[in-house]
Amino acid sequence: MRLVKLNRVINSIADAGLVLWRQKSTEEAEAEERTPVELCNELLSTQGEASGTAIARKIATAYAAMRVEEQSEFFHNLRHEFHLDPEEVVQAAENYKASRDDKDLRALVSAAEPRRQELIRRLNMAPNGTAFLVGMRRDLLGHLEENSELEAVDDDFVHILSSWFNRGFLTLERIDWNTPASVLEKLIEYETVHAMRGWDDLRRRLSDDRRCFAFFHSALPGEPLIFVEVALVQGLSAQIDPIIADDREHLNPDEADTAIFYSINACHKGLSGISFGDFLIKQVVVELKQELPQLEAFSTLSPVPRFIRWTEAMARGSDEQVLKEAAVEALELLSDPHWPDDENVRQRLEPLIMQLAAHYFFNAKRGVYPYDPVARFHLRNGARLERINWLGDLSDKGVDQSAGLMVNYLYDPKDIETNHERYIKNHHIAAAANVTALAEQGA
Amino acid sequence: MRLVKLNRVINSIADAGLVLWRQKSTEEAEAEERTPVELCNELLSTQGEASGTAIARKIATAYAAMRVEEQSEFFHNLRHEFHLDPEEVVQAAENYKASRDDKDLRALVSAAEPRRQELIRRLNMAPNGTAFLVGMRRDLLGHLEENSELEAVDDDFVHILSSWFNRGFLTLERIDWNTPASVLEKLIEYETVHAMRGWDDLRRRLSDDRRCFAFFHSALPGEPLIFVEVALVQGLSAQIDPIIADDREHLNPDEADTAIFYSINACHKGLSGISFGDFLIKQVVVELKQELPQLEAFSTLSPVPRFIRWTEAMARGSDEQVLKEAAVEALELLSDPHWPDDENVRQRLEPLIMQLAAHYFFNAKRGVYPYDPVARFHLRNGARLERINWLGDLSDKGVDQSAGLMVNYLYDPKDIETNHERYIKNHHIAAAANVTALAEQGA
Amino acid sequence: MRLVKLNRVINSIADAGLVLWRQKSTEEAEAEERTPVELCNELLSTQGEASGTAIARKIATAYAAMRVEEQSEFFHNLRHEFHLDPEEVVQAAENYKASRDDKDLRALVSAAEPRRQELIRRLNMAPNGTAFLVGMRRDLLGHLEENSELEAVDDDFVHILSSWFNRGFLTLERIDWNTPASVLEKLIEYETVHAMRGWDDLRRRLSDDRRCFAFFHSALPGEPLIFVEVALVQGLSAQIDPIIADDREHLNPDEADTAIFYSINACHKGLSGISFGDFLIKQVVVELKQELPQLEAFSTLSPVPRFIRWTEAMARGSDEQVLKEAAVEALELLSDPHWPDDENVRQRLEPLIMQLAAHYFFNAKRGVYPYDPVARFHLRNGARLERINWLGDLSDKGVDQSAGLMVNYLYDPKDIETNHERYIKNHHIAAAANVTALAEQGA
Amino acid sequence: MRLVKLNRVINSIADAGLVLWRQKSTEEAEAEERTPVELCNELLSTQGEASGTAIARKIATAYAAMRVEEQSEFFHNLRHEFHLDPEEVVQAAENYKASRDDKDLRALVSAAEPRRQELIRRLNMAPNGTAFLVGMRRDLLGHLEENSELEAVDDDFVHILSSWFNRGFLTLERIDWNTPASVLEKLIEYETVHAMRGWDDLRRRLSDDRRCFAFFHSALPGEPLIFVEVALVQGLSAQIDPIIADDREHLNPDEADTAIFYSINACHKGLSGISFGDFLIKQVVVELKQELPQLEAFSTLSPVPRFIRWTEAMARGSDEQVLKEAAVEALELLSDPHWPDDENVRQRLEPLIMQLAAHYFFNAKRGVYPYDPVARFHLRNGARLERINWLGDLSDKGVDQSAGLMVNYLYDPKDIETNHERYIKNHHIAAAANVTALAEQGA
Repeated sequence: MRLVKLNRVINSIADAGLVLWRQKSTEEAEAEERTPVELCNELLSTQGEASGTAIARKIATAYAAMRVEEQSEFFHNLRHEFHLDPEEVVQAAENYKASRDDKDLRALVSAAEPRRQELIRRLNMAPNGTAFLVGMRRDLLGHLEENSELEAVDDDFVHILSSWFNRGFLTLERIDWNTPASVLEKLIEYETVHAMRGWDDLRRRLSDDRRCFAFFHSALPGEPLIFVEVALVQGLSAQIDPIIADDREHLNPDEADTAIFYSINACHKGLSGISFGDFLIKQVVVELKQELPQLEAFSTLSPVPRFIRWTEAMARGSDEQVLKEAAVEALELLSDPHWPDDENVRQRLEPLIMQLAAHYFFNAKRGVYPYDPVARFHLRNGARLERINWLGDLSDKGVDQSAGLMVNYLYDPKDIETNHERYIKNHHIAAAANVTALAEQGA
Repeated sequence: MRLVKLNRVINSIADAGLVLWRQKSTEEAEAEERTPVELCNELLSTQGEASGTAIARKIATAYAAMRVEEQSEFFHNLRHEFHLDPEEVVQAAENYKASRDDKDLRALVSAAEPRRQELIRRLNMAPNGTAFLVGMRRDLLGHLEENSELEAVDDDFVHILSSWFNRGFLTLERIDWNTPASVLEKLIEYETVHAMRGWDDLRRRLSDDRRCFAFFHSALPGEPLIFVEVALVQGLSAQIDPIIADDREHLNPDEADTAIFYSINACHKGLSGISFGDFLIKQVVVELKQELPQLEAFSTLSPVPRFIRWTEAMARGSDEQVLKEAAVEALELLSDPHWPDDENVRQRLEPLIMQLAAHYFFNAKRGVYPYDPVARFHLRNGARLERINWLGDLSDKGVDQSAGLMVNYLYDPKDIETNHERYIKNHHIAAAANVTALAEQGA
Repeated sequence: MRLVKLNRVINSIADAGLVLWRQKSTEEAEAEERTPVELCNELLSTQGEASGTAIARKIATAYAAMRVEEQSEFFHNLRHEFHLDPEEVVQAAENYKASRDDKDLRALVSAAEPRRQELIRRLNMAPNGTAFLVGMRRDLLGHLEENSELEAVDDDFVHILSSWFNRGFLTLERIDWNTPASVLEKLIEYETVHAMRGWDDLRRRLSDDRRCFAFFHSALPGEPLIFVEVALVQGLSAQIDPIIADDREHLNPDEADTAIFYSINACHKGLSGISFGDFLIKQVVVELKQELPQLEAFSTLSPVPRFIRWTEAMARGSDEQVLKEAAVEALELLSDPHWPDDENVRQRLEPLIMQLAAHYFFNAKRGVYPYDPVARFHLRNGARLERINWLGDLSDKGVDQSAGLMVNYLYDPKDIETNHERYIKNHHIAAAANVTALAEQGA
Repeated sequence: MRLVKLNRVINSIADAGLVLWRQKSTEEAEAEERTPVELCNELLSTQGEASGTAIARKIATAYAAMRVEEQSEFFHNLRHEFHLDPEEVVQAAENYKASRDDKDLRALVSAAEPRRQELIRRLNMAPNGTAFLVGMRRDLLGHLEENSELEAVDDDFVHILSSWFNRGFLTLERIDWNTPASVLEKLIEYETVHAMRGWDDLRRRLSDDRRCFAFFHSALPGEPLIFVEVALVQGLSAQIDPIIADDREHLNPDEADTAIFYSINACHKGLSGISFGDFLIKQVVVELKQELPQLEAFSTLSPVPRFIRWTEAMARGSDEQVLKEAAVEALELLSDPHWPDDENVRQRLEPLIMQLAAHYFFNAKRGVYPYDPVARFHLRNGARLERINWLGDLSDKGVDQSAGLMVNYLYDPKDIETNHERYIKNHHIAAAANVTALAEQGA
């Protein structure tokens, strides 16, 4: 069974539609001058069904050539020209309410779906259509910041991409040094948590006491969607440097008892909000347990990316005087860039920071959930806040954002579901005894 | 890059959720007793997002065990319990009409989408979820015949499956004798146009003067969705027997000038109505032209499956007396099973049948389009009715349904688009001069 | 990394050498008329090194067109024209004996190697060269029966093929229903121990309570060299029918405790005498143990293919009167084709046959090793004669050759090496206590 | 058909032989103490056939632990203990001369083959046996420089490796950016003609206007044996820098009319003398012509690595006064490292160097063939000396070895065979008219 190279074929079909398969008349040449909106309307017509590939390719080509302002105009057209008509929806709903008739139901459902949804689905027929659409959404997110009315367009992208990138369609693949270079270079590009320092660093992160897994989708071949880097170690890692240093120690993987998830990266801005991270970690836990049955613990080693920002806010004006004073003093001490070298400062800072961190994790909220985005992600997944590590990451970024703290979120298979349920229902933050004690001590 | 066996992993995750990862308490054991509808509601809850795989699997397992009546009940529940509320839609539409606010828009779009749509999407998380859903739709179609109100449920299946089986997600693969047996046996199973007579017949149909292409979808690995069988020949074939006979002649593929598409089979009842056939033929034309540039013509050799049925209707009572008489006489002659052996009968029958056929193709309609389903498919695709072949298929089925006729629909790349447009706009039937002449002669 | 289709390229190179890459002069056209022997000499010349592919292909083409007598002539030419010169060897050996010089050593080694060895190696450059040579050896074996002087040619084939099909170059592959049909059809063709009854039988032998493994060599892609069929069962199987019957019972493979090797087939006559069977079984034992750790026993279920022949010889004239009488009576009873249906006959036959069999295994010899070829193979491998099964195979072949007996040779990993060593050193036949007892009882 | 991971299995078999499959007795423990020579003898014994994998692995392990002096001793043992006995050969040859008997022939052939040949073949059974043997030969070549008597051992390695790495067993694979990184890093390691400057350089050399092909052997998976780098360009390249510079221009491959082979690298010292380079270039020509039919010329861009060495010899004392003076003056001018920057010097040097080069290519010999090793290789292959390029390579190495010259050897398919034959028969140097003219002008 040989896979026909699809893009070649799709391009041929599109070419054929345009060039080989008919002689261009004058009218047709004029037709070529159609605007993107006209092309979109044509794609949505009944005729568009058959010649969809050719029209979709034309739109993709036109889009690729647009300047930013033209993109903006295009998205506004999607917003207004390919929208739904609320009056029509009201009428259709009234009709259906009265008749309870299937035909009226169909009319209602159809009227209440913005036309751009079907447009997006048909654009997928263009060569590399899915990549084209994911890129278009990335652009759209850029425009969104200034044009909140485009959110309605984004809602439809999210709706369709969520359906297409449904977990059931993702494949988990292990990435190692035998992976094609064309895929590996993307890890270098997409790794932002602990940036890669070139191919030698990458190679170390793929050596035999490391694991790397990614989700792929068949419509984006060779494109990781999200990947996780795992270190096989002994005991729970408290610091990032022993994991990613150039001269780190190597461990025989059979001697490891713990898997540390030390970096998770979503790769495509155009897919942001389409969640697959939770599923990834759990699948990787199962996969690792199969390969290395002796593994006893599965945990992250994560940054606390909003900690300094929050501490600054506390210093500016917390209601709690103790908290405010601690924040002020901590920031004062941290303001000296050489603080990690000064034993005295470190000794003074440690209890301050640890207390602030305990408060941060249990009391700082966005709505009813933790303020910290990494905590939100892992706690929602069913992990437990296992340990807060003082001096876990002394890189510039680690100090600037997290005051050097790193956190272990532990995935204990037997508690995942309970933790998740209590988090969703009661916003309960699962934590190890030592962390809870720290929080109580601070209270 | 190694592909982790996903179903194994998904099963492990599901198992883990149920068995390994927690100790079952009494409450949980009771929870196991939940009805399918309760499970569906749970899957749609916020919590269901995280433990979706486990719940989806439970529903799949429960569904697999249902008797036909239980299935029927389940589908009715989908119809009524996971429907939309028209009053809510009216209200939401009114709100949005007044406010033109994005939040109200979102509420409207959400209210107007039957809840079962999201349910279907989440069920895809089950192991082999897509196969499970395609099978469920197959069952649903069975129930539909007696329960037309289930059409609303089917509409949602069609809506979602159309999006998932979007052309942009299909891959064209060539099938030959090096294809795994597990795929090949499906061709034997799914071939219904000219049924296969076992593995030897299959092997002949995959020899080097034959081609076979199929569409696949990554979520149904090893499952052809639709496949086409092609014979490489010299000149336009008029009869099926020289193509599929056990002792047919073999042709050096380099000497072929014509590709005959002699059998197209959709494989999954659960995907009926999700069209990919048109795209398939055009892609295969491009593919064949690449491999064998000397090919000059691409044509089907197709049955006329409703011809006898229509002729019988004409005989029972056509308005046109000439037509009625011709039909009566033709059926009379055909009623002798040995007619093909009688030279005299054949000579009398030929002009009768050919005239009836010309009438059939140009005047017999379902709505504004041809009554013949095969003609509808190929003419809509842009093919031309090239030739009607007397004594094209003398198999029992060929005689019983098509009076032995076979038809060539010719795909001429340079005319495809024009033909398609004229068919859609004016219901024009593209035909070769000789066929048109035949029709006019009969008029 | 894409594999370039080598045969296409090799053919292109060969074509190029002949057709494209030069203009043929008259002299060259004459050269085309060269005899196979002339071509072989040319291939062995220094020039042949560079244009080897073209010349080798010419020889292959010429060989393919030879009638049997021409083949015979060709092999005789290999025997005499591409031989070594004993006088030259004597001289070279004398020279080296005197000088002990490396140059003289090289001359000696070269002189003592028949020229056809290098010829065979260079013929491998032809497209599909290895398959061509394996086929040539198959033909040679046919001629050998009447021309024993060709054995010298065969020795060189064996020498080179043994080196090329060295165990280190073989790959073990599991064959199942996902294997390409082009490979599977070869199993049907090559299975001679328990012949396959078509594709349905094959499919049953590849179901999930069966295993099949084969050795492959990269130069014969898609060609199994030897394969073994394994049944996963509970307890040691005594009969073949429950294993291969159309309506046999299916076992969940996780419940199996025993792997029965019930058929081993070497596939290519042209590779006979190049042994890989011993290695195969041991590798498969390791492989099965990895996949199914619960397996406790690995055993064959084997025929006794020379038993009747030997019994007949005993009946004709054994020195031992008891043995002779038992043989005569047994053959007498077996001569009624309905004996298996007659309870009385079976009761009388069983002790007779079992005693004869015990004698056969322990006392019938070819040289110092067992007369039975299957016993020689497995005992040499380190297996133990575990059990002799009365009424193990009541097929025609089973009755005609083995009097219905089947034997279990047990591969017990912990004893394999010791058994092998004692077999080689002392010709000891490892056997289970019950078999030994049977033999002693008969003594 | 799934490939069982062979090394895992082989290791398991070896492990099994040693650990699992028997209980070690005291004697056996002592046996473990056997010397490498004893183990080699054991491997050659009849018993070794069956337990070969385990013994071969022991020898490989022992060898890996040897210090250089121990290696030397081991190779001397191979030379003397696993040699042939000339007296025995004489006797065997005499016997055969007298008897012309097949049995005596067999004895002769066997006696005249050093025992280490069979030893080498059996060592291939070790896990990764072929890689082990290729590495052993690399070591042997190191010892050879000081111990010429080891050449006899090397002869046997060459004999066997030539047979195993027979062209018919090699596969040509295209290497590009989709190749696994584990293979690509070897290109960086093995490229010595124009060394790679890291992964970015490699990526440029694999971009779409470049091609790279390598030979692989199934027993050395992922290990290129020899690879060629090709630039697709317009017209015959005269300089290396425009091909490998970081900021080189990119060409649409469809616009190229010429393929320049600018670097050929053999990868394994242990395979030196086993030639596959000639075959590689011709296969790649065929492959490129298939992919890009518009290519009109296939040529190398090669260094002249012995040119300065030869010029120095000429300056020291050529018989021809004119030549000597030219050499002296050229070296004088070249001695200023800034000569390429001085227009006047360049103008004076160019005619001197070009004349010397013409003399060098046509008159400097090693035996009857050219002194220049690159010229020997390509002329023997049938290429033509097409052009000598002044200022072709101004890198340090290019200036130091080749005085900056680069040469095009043109592979014209229609002349390859004739050129090769004339080279072999008459030592004729095929050259383009301009080069011949240059040589005559200098005469």
